[in-house]
Formats: sequence, structure tokens, C-alpha cells
Amino acid sequence: MSDEGAGRRIRLHGLRQSTVGHTAVGLWRHPDSRAHEYRELHHWIETARILERGCFDALFVADALGPLDTYQGRVDAALRDGVQTPTDDPLLVISAMAAATEHLGFAVTVSTTYEQPYAFARKMTTLDHLTRGRIGWNIVTSALDSAARNLGLERQLPHDERYVRAEEFMEVVYKLWEGSWRDDAVVRDGVFADPARVRPVLHDGEYYRVRDIALSEPSAQRTPTLYQAGTSPAGIAFAARHAEGVFLSAYEPAGARSLVDRVRASAAEQGRDPRSLKFFPIMTVVAAETDEAARAKYASYAACASWEGSLARWSALMQIDLSVLDPDKPLEYVDTDGIRGMVELFTTLDPTRTWTPRAIGEFVGVGGGGPVLVGSPATVADGLERWMEDADVDGFNLADPVAPAGHRDFVDLVVPELRRRGRVWPAYEGTTLRERISGGPRVRPDHPAHAHRWTP
Amino acid sequence: MSDEGAGRRIRLHGLRQSTVGHTAVGLWRHPDSRAHEYRELHHWIETARILERGCFDALFVADALGPLDTYQGRVDAALRDGVQTPTDDPLLVISAMAAATEHLGFAVTVSTTYEQPYAFARKMTTLDHLTRGRIGWNIVTSALDSAARNLGLERQLPHDERYVRAEEFMEVVYKLWEGSWRDDAVVRDGVFADPARVRPVLHDGEYYRVRDIALSEPSAQRTPTLYQAGTSPAGIAFAARHAEGVFLSAYEPAGARSLVDRVRASAAEQGRDPRSLKFFPIMTVVAAETDEAARAKYASYAACASWEGSLARWSALMQIDLSVLDPDKPLEYVDTDGIRGMVELFTTLDPTRTWTPRAIGEFVGVGGGGPVLVGSPATVADGLERWMEDADVDGFNLADPVAPAGHRDFVDLVVPELRRRGRVWPAYEGTTLRERISGGPRVRPDHPAHAHRWTP
Repeated sequence: MSDEGAGRRIRLHGLRQSTVGHTAVGLWRHPDSRAHEYRELHHWIETARILERGCFDALFVADALGPLDTYQGRVDAALRDGVQTPTDDPLLVISAMAAATEHLGFAVTVSTTYEQPYAFARKMTTLDHLTRGRIGWNIVTSALDSAARNLGLERQLPHDERYVRAEEFMEVVYKLWEGSWRDDAVVRDGVFADPARVRPVLHDGEYYRVRDIALSEPSAQRTPTLYQAGTSPAGIAFAARHAEGVFLSAYEPAGARSLVDRVRASAAEQGRDPRSLKFFPIMTVVAAETDEAARAKYASYAACASWEGSLARWSALMQIDLSVLDPDKPLEYVDTDGIRGMVELFTTLDPTRTWTPRAIGEFVGVGGGGPVLVGSPATVADGLERWMEDADVDGFNLADPVAPAGHRDFVDLVVPELRRRGRVWPAYEGTTLRERISGGPRVRPDHPAHAHRWTP
Repeated sequence: MSDEGAGRRIRLHGLRQSTVGHTAVGLWRHPDSRAHEYRELHHWIETARILERGCFDALFVADALGPLDTYQGRVDAALRDGVQTPTDDPLLVISAMAAATEHLGFAVTVSTTYEQPYAFARKMTTLDHLTRGRIGWNIVTSALDSAARNLGLERQLPHDERYVRAEEFMEVVYKLWEGSWRDDAVVRDGVFADPARVRPVLHDGEYYRVRDIALSEPSAQRTPTLYQAGTSPAGIAFAARHAEGVFLSAYEPAGARSLVDRVRASAAEQGRDPRSLKFFPIMTVVAAETDEAARAKYASYAACASWEGSLARWSALMQIDLSVLDPDKPLEYVDTDGIRGMVELFTTLDPTRTWTPRAIGEFVGVGGGGPVLVGSPATVADGLERWMEDADVDGFNLADPVAPAGHRDFVDLVVPELRRRGRVWPAYEGTTLRERISGGPRVRPDHPAHAHRWTP
């Protein structure tokens, strides 16, 4: 199976958050959904086993560090529909899933804004130890005011300053992961570690200061496999510099392709092979044996969705309170940048429809912020193949509106079809996550972490 | 089996750190030790299953946030002997052990000095969800300069200020755990949660500020079972106020009893039932079928111990560089408070011996900082029973010098003897950790967290 050109491999990530309603809002009401079991080990272990059965590269667990309270300036709508509120810590369940699987990777969102790099580096190395090289990190800088005001900041840092600070954060963790312990430092013969092969990280920067050796001995990947999802100019530059996998969201392949092209061009400018970055647009799939059965399933999902909960989610994403708008008045009259952009987007998708807040809330109910493919295995596979070519992406970040039934349907129905077409792995290759995303267990020579490697 | 008076139940905790050499220094060299597998899931899963087989209340995983570099002002000795350096994050392996067990609790060290209470509260609630009420927290404020200088502080906060700050930290997390969500807030019928039953925590203090609802829905225990191990006056007052379980270290029952009495008296002054606090002195047990075989096993352990590594560990514990002393010169001449106290301690233990630094390093090799019981099951059980009565403690915090073989020996050899004597459980009672430590799943009415409960 080739990784290049038409017919190349489709790489699969499963997308979740440790919450009752992540992308699809209100679908915990559907009888097929067990999403309310997000607090239970068996739920996550089952999810991981389903994805591993489908040879997914990784489960990606997103996170939010504050309640969603932009809508109405209150948390009420988010609580009523379970919109990413409440939400549990995503790191702590990984070792249980790792123990129940052999190959599946785990990509997890952690914000640079609220971590000390010295302690964070140890967390990731610990997970890389426990998973034997299967850990990935989705780098975010956090956009929620509700996170900032509870975590020691009066309000969030300005957007661009968050990225300046994140840049220094990356430098520190690269030094800790790649430059403190030589590969041959742990001897375990006479002495445990040879002090001559372990050196302190000396970092004295604008935001961070480190003086000592990394606390953890080296892991299989050293630097975890790095993911990012930025779409602002600063975010794109950051992704182009650091990301090995890029998560993105677009309703149409053309929109995705535009972002993919921009990030690849920016990566090339920074001296990286632009094809070494892999792109995974978010996608929701509703699959059944036949197109008709799939459409019926979709209708049963949509009937559980909440337009107001979806607006609460979008309000938090855009940090604009959409509750101040008349839910049934067409949106053309609104003069805010973010809302104008939203209206343009939805008008492109369906110019015949009158886009009111309620109509948008209803439209995004099942897919959250991304496209939905509904159909038989062949129909869905056709759709995924079209996206691969038209958007020039490397695979998908598959949400699950009725966890874990959505992922199970995909693995039971769509994966066999993709295997017949030779588009997905029949078995895992390599042992680390990075081997599947960018070819080897350690960062590539053209990645900025590589410069911090310490080799004799 | 009674919890009161002579013959009362002996409660068992297993003690580990995610490192190659925790209390016993250098014993990773022993052929029975698999301690170097601390980075592997199977090692922790096996450890948890062993302890559950012995009906231990909990595994306690200690932590250190910086390398041990007080000795010689360098990390070299700690690296050579693997003295708590390197060390991995203790929280991240818990869910894997929880998935492999049903009853065992997990107590874990986290420092209040380097966490934001809002995010930390979510971590503990997440673990309480995943373990279904089996999580405990050993509250520390961190004594290592090497942690402070890598985690955003120039050097550690003064000792008493750390406790003032910890006191405010506790107030914030109690509010988040006990006071933000009513027990009946999650409805999952029509609405997911009833907004009228969830309220923000409004805290505006000297060190912390919180404005929002707790991010996690309630867990079985709410506040995790609380442990502490302070021995300074500020530490004793803190333990007396907050701890439900107290870890302590003393070579002799009399020394333990003096601390136990002081903490119980201080707890009574603060309006708590002094018997509701449970005390667990550290203990190392080397058990074999016969006393003679146990002595031979101890000798084989001691042969692997490192006196210099032990001094490196003690230097960090005392934050005094013991390398400046002549290793072979008796210590009477030294005028430092901490060292005078150490000499007095060891002279009490054996007045006939000449206590040089090397002699002390050799003496503490297997037991680390605590007593060692060596013998047949009957001999060890006699020793434990004597400690229970003479020190008035409630059980033990059992270190493992050759993990996990030390815990396995204890469970296979000593636990059956203790069961015959009716001193340990034949099976688990209750489902949460707190039920085993202080009687019920939620904090007692006389505990300071109780005042923050929100009940209709």
C-alpha cells in the first residue's frame, strides 16, 4: 500500500473528549449512545479495542479546561445539553487503554498555557514509557476565558502572546526530551545510569527557566508524536514548524485543501519536507448496511440533537454570545466579523436556505463543526476517497456522535470495505505511533526537535 | 474483627515510587528485584494484583518533583545508584492498575505548591470516577529546591508559607469537590444536568482565585481520601486538621507513638475525633519460611545496598550535603542541628556502635528511613503486633526493597499468618477507599471538608 499519490493509505484517528457531548450536542439522549459512561474505565477500554480492531492509528482525546459559558454568559445551556460540560481530565485514562491494547496510539490535548514544561515533559515521557512509544500530544494554547480565570490568570493571554510563549515552551520540552539523557545513559550494570551521559538542561528564557536534568529516563519516541490544529496565521506558522499530524475542520474538501496547502507551504519555507506533515480533517460518519438504513439512523440521531446546545458550543468556539441574536431571524443583518464569516460559510453550503441561528444550530447537531457522511459502506468509502483526493489529506479524525456505537459501526461496516479497496492497513506496522505518522520512532532530521538531540 | 483496642485490625498499605530505588538504595542490583521495570505497565499491574490478593487497603505511590542532587551538589550519586532519580509521574499509571483490580485503593503524592487547585480538583475527581471511589491523595508541599527552580520559582517557598498556601489550596479544592454540584445535579432525563443544582465556586484568596463551577460531575468519594506525612509543627497541625490517614517514619514504636499522640491531640483540639485519624508507620519486611532463611535473604539484600546512595538520599531528605563529612570519621564533632539529631537517633538505636557517615549509609541501606522486620511469618507477625500496641498505630506502610518480590513475599507468607491470628481482613468490605480508612464513602461531619457540602 502506497503512501503517495492516488490510492494511498487512509490513516484513521478516532476523536473523543472525556465528556458526554463533544462534537454532536444532545445525542447522549439517543438509545445507542453510551457517552454518559465517559467516567467509566470499561467504556474507554471498549472504545480502544474497537479502534484497534479497525487498525486506527490513534485515539485522539480532546480537552477543554473551562466550562462552556459564553452563550448567555452562563453555563446553563451547556449543562442542560451536556456540551463539553462536565469534562474529565484526558491523560489519566490512557494507561488503562494502553494495557488493553497493543498497537493503538493515544493523542491527547494538553495546553502549554497552564503547564510547567519541566513537569509536563515528565508526564509525556511517563506515558511514552507506559505505552511503549504510542503517545501523541495535540498542542493547544487554550482559547477559553473560563479556563484562564480559574487557573491563575485574570483572563486569557492575548492570542499571539500565547503562541510566543508556546514557542518557548516547545524549546524547553525539546531540550528535556531530546538533549538531557544520551541513548546509552542507563547502564544497569554496576551503576544504574552513567552520570557522564546525563546533562542538565540550562534554559533561561522569557517565560521559563530550567536548571536540571530531565526527571525521566528516555522513552521510545523521546518527543511524543506532535499534533496541532491551529487555523489563525500564528497557529498555521506554529503547526508548520512543529506538527507532524495536523487536525483540521472544514465542511468541504476545497476549504480543507486551502488550509493544507498553506500549512505545507509554510512548512517548506521552514525547511521541512511538506509531505512529512499529515493532515486529518474531522469527519462524522453515519454508516449502515444500506443508504436507506443509514439515512434512517441519521434521522434518529438528528432527532436527539439540540440546536440551543449547538449554539452554546459555537458561542464558546467563537467566543461570541450567540444568544443575543433572535434565533429565528435570518443572520444577514449582523455586523460582527465572526458571525459574518459563519453566515458566508453556511450560505456557501446551501444558498437556498435561510440561515437563522436556530437553523445553524440544527444543521450542525450531528456533525458538530464538520462534515457528515451518511450511507452504506460503499457510499461512505466513496466519500472518504473523494475527500482524500480533493482535499489532499492523509486520513481522517473520526468523531463519534453516539460513542462508542459510531466508531463500532465504522469499524464493522466501513473498514472492511476500505480493506477490500486496499485503502487501509490489514494489520499494524511498526510499534510506535510516530512510525505510522512520519516513518520512524524518532523525530525527523528536518524537525526542530532534532537539533536538540544529544548523540556522542 | 474489631477496630478498637488490642487485637484490632491491621490495615496495610503498599509503598512505592515510580523509580528504580525508592527507600532501599541500590537493591535494583539484586537478582530478585524487578524495580527497573517501573516504566512498564505489566510491572504495576502485577504489583496491584499482589496487594489486592493480600487485601491491602491501598498502594501508596510517592513522588519527588526534582532530581536528588543535594549530595556533592550534583546528581551523580543519585544517578549511579538510581536513588529516586530518574522518576516518573505517579498519577498516570493508576487507571491501568484500577482496571486490573476491583478493590485496591490508590494513594498518590501530589504537591500543592505546583498545582492549580481548579485543574487539580478535576484530576482527582477523574481518578475517583475511573477507580469508582478508590483514590487517595497524599498532600505534600515539596521540600526540594531542585523542584522549585525548574517549576517557576527561584527557590522553594519558606516552609511555613508553603503550609499557609496549602491551607488555602485545601479550602479551594474542598469547595470544588463538595460544594459545586449537588448529589442530584446530573439528571440525564430530558436535560443532562439541572443548572439549578450546579453553582460556581467563588474564591478570591491570597494565592488562588476561582470563579466557576467544578469541571467534573461528582464522584463516589467527592474529596479523595486524604493522607499526610508532616512532622514539623506546621506539618503536624496540617495533618491534624486535614488528614484521614497519616504516614510516618520512626525507627522505634516509642518514637512513632510520640508523633501519633501529638497529632491525635492536635486533631482533638480542632474538634475532630482523634481515633478517626489512622496512622501508618513505614515498615520494611524481609520474610521467608524460617528466621534463618529470612536472615540470609536480608544479608543478600544488604550486600546490594549502597552506603553512598543512601547518604545521597538522606542529604536530599535533610537538605544537608553529607558528602562534606569524612565518611569514616565518627559524627560527634558535627555541630549542625540536623546532623546532631541524626547522631542522637542512631546512638539511641545502638549506643555501642561508632556512627560514621558510612556506617549510617550502610545501616539504612535496606530499610531506607525506617525499621526492618526480618524473619519467619510468625516472627514478623509478632513484630507487627508489638508495633500496633506499643506505637498505637492502625497498620503499616510497607516498603518493598526488591519490587515486587518483597510485597509478594509479604502477601504469600505473612498475610496468611495474620489471617490466622484474625488481624487482617479475609476479604474486602465496602467499595470506596474512605470506607476502609474512616468508615464511610464521604468525609465525616467533623472533617473541615464537610462544611463545604451543598445539600438541598
